[in-house]
Amino acid sequence: MKIERIETAYYRLPLEAVGDAGHGLLDSEELITLRLHAEGLEAHGYTYTIGKGGRAVQAVIDHDLAPILVGQDANDIQRLWNMMWQRLLYVGRGGLAAFAIAAVDVALWDLHGLRDQKPLYALFGAEARDIPAYGSGVDLPKSLDDLLKQTESFMARGFPGVKVKIGRIDPQEDEARVGAVRKLIGPGVDLMVDANMTWTTEQALERGRRLEQFGLYWYEEPTIPEDVKGHARLAQELDVPIAIGESLHSPHEFQRYVDEGAVEVLQIDPITNGGITASLKALQMADAAGLKTSSHYTDELSAHLLSASRNAVYLEKHAFALDPYLQEPQRVVNGHVRPTEVPGTGMRFDESALAPYRDR
Amino acid sequence: MKIERIETAYYRLPLEAVGDAGHGLLDSEELITLRLHAEGLEAHGYTYTIGKGGRAVQAVIDHDLAPILVGQDANDIQRLWNMMWQRLLYVGRGGLAAFAIAAVDVALWDLHGLRDQKPLYALFGAEARDIPAYGSGVDLPKSLDDLLKQTESFMARGFPGVKVKIGRIDPQEDEARVGAVRKLIGPGVDLMVDANMTWTTEQALERGRRLEQFGLYWYEEPTIPEDVKGHARLAQELDVPIAIGESLHSPHEFQRYVDEGAVEVLQIDPITNGGITASLKALQMADAAGLKTSSHYTDELSAHLLSASRNAVYLEKHAFALDPYLQEPQRVVNGHVRPTEVPGTGMRFDESALAPYRDR
Repeated sequence: MKIERIETAYYRLPLEAVGDAGHGLLDSEELITLRLHAEGLEAHGYTYTIGKGGRAVQAVIDHDLAPILVGQDANDIQRLWNMMWQRLLYVGRGGLAAFAIAAVDVALWDLHGLRDQKPLYALFGAEARDIPAYGSGVDLPKSLDDLLKQTESFMARGFPGVKVKIGRIDPQEDEARVGAVRKLIGPGVDLMVDANMTWTTEQALERGRRLEQFGLYWYEEPTIPEDVKGHARLAQELDVPIAIGESLHSPHEFQRYVDEGAVEVLQIDPITNGGITASLKALQMADAAGLKTSSHYTDELSAHLLSASRNAVYLEKHAFALDPYLQEPQRVVNGHVRPTEVPGTGMRFDESALAPYRDR
Repeated sequence: MKIERIETAYYRLPLEAVGDAGHGLLDSEELITLRLHAEGLEAHGYTYTIGKGGRAVQAVIDHDLAPILVGQDANDIQRLWNMMWQRLLYVGRGGLAAFAIAAVDVALWDLHGLRDQKPLYALFGAEARDIPAYGSGVDLPKSLDDLLKQTESFMARGFPGVKVKIGRIDPQEDEARVGAVRKLIGPGVDLMVDANMTWTTEQALERGRRLEQFGLYWYEEPTIPEDVKGHARLAQELDVPIAIGESLHSPHEFQRYVDEGAVEVLQIDPITNGGITASLKALQMADAAGLKTSSHYTDELSAHLLSASRNAVYLEKHAFALDPYLQEPQRVVNGHVRPTEVPGTGMRFDESALAPYRDR
């Protein structure tokens, strides 16, 4: 199937003011949608940022990727992934290049599904599963009251787990917030914490020890992603499992974390990882190493991907839901989600809902 | 000094068809120039790519960096570097983000020099030095005849060293080419080879052993930059020193190479490394570890930077010279170069020479 045309569109979607320790205050998300035409089929892909870099991602797709993809056979996705990686090698190896490759890669998988009339999970050789979902706020700036209100709304949706951002300057504030959430949810609900890379290894160790009393399910991004040895040390010294993945922009980065015993819950994000193709590889590494897996954002794609993972424990229901902009928002039933059954990714944006945010 | 305005311009500069083992055939270079206005001074920066990603780099500067820089005090360059890194963290940590940060960082250093009326090297606390330069082709596709002609032209310019690209499919071709160049230059000229990341560690080891007979000064980028352990192994097992640096997009990446004993000649490129600020850190790491240093491309900036390095052995005179587009091209005297003595970087583009290539 020859690729005939690739089109992108840029949107800036407003967020109610949220934030975390690593990225600060966030007021918008950038969404770049991609349409790929091949022999009468129209496949859809997308990529996102948390407010910065979206114009650049679109420029990479339009100027550097689309011109070499048109005319190529769309069937061998890995070959095209390699071609894109290689083309962007000098300015890539992760970062913005990974976000651009992802948009194309998602569309190529969608096309594969449309052609074979199969949902994504079936293309991975997997069966559809009910995956436990956890409620996830981007809530570091929220007052304790608002944090607890958010937690109540998660409980009302039946989530078996909830996650709280940590990384306040004063450790006692983190303890008070995590403790209050634990008290509210009781012992039967899983509780995760996420530091968004804010600490040194020493700080992360001390903070982790203080918080372990609350019975945590995982401790996410305690320090910067470059500090693989730090993560490995935290994994060894703390009881709470260390989770990472959204900041890893290539299979190489995942491989290093797995090889060095620096990750215990491997989290995929098929956009930031560099596409579905890259996240699948990360999940295969996790399976081979006997690691638990989970996801970051990308709720709809991740339901398919985690169905193909042996030890998938949770899908993240992220605060940045694309729900208002999707024709068929993902359904949560008893705190669980399932992959869609329609051919391809099952993701179709609602053009009229997106229109007001185009090129803003 | 308050930053008042930042402007960029995009150029696609033609190259005579050249190529290497990692990046394939190259027919153009992208140049993004940057002007930064602050309190009556106009500072100049630039960044480049080897033909892909330039539009994205410009978009990052225009959409994501310039808006937060305007109004900032330009004096504390490290603080602004950190701010840019942090702002682009989610989509950055290297890659295109590093190339964008570099353009601003170069202009900030230029501004610093204009303000203090000092050349760049003096801002680093260094003294100007005569630095040996080596002739460097991007010559893998060239015939042996053309390779030897190129080598003769390097000899005519008095370079004490020359570099040859390797990575032909047939190892005997690499041997024949390197051997012929050695024969031509004789034993008194240094000979470097550059594989541009094309091999696995095993292949790189075997290829390196075959080529050591020609008395090599260094062996550059034998395998992919992600394979730090591979580089460390090659450094241990081969007599020829291992060189790397142009593909390292952050001080973190350099730190890992230095820590793991995976680099013996540390090469800077103040564009791909993420700015002068980042390359300076890399040179400090090299000094602390007792490593030799060199440069990649960026001939003009690197003359200043290498003046501040204790064991600087060579500056690369690259095939992609900006000479035709500079008001004052760098001078080579007896195969050596010196940093410029005018305030700032000393780099001013010739607008009329660039004009035909704008936005192409």
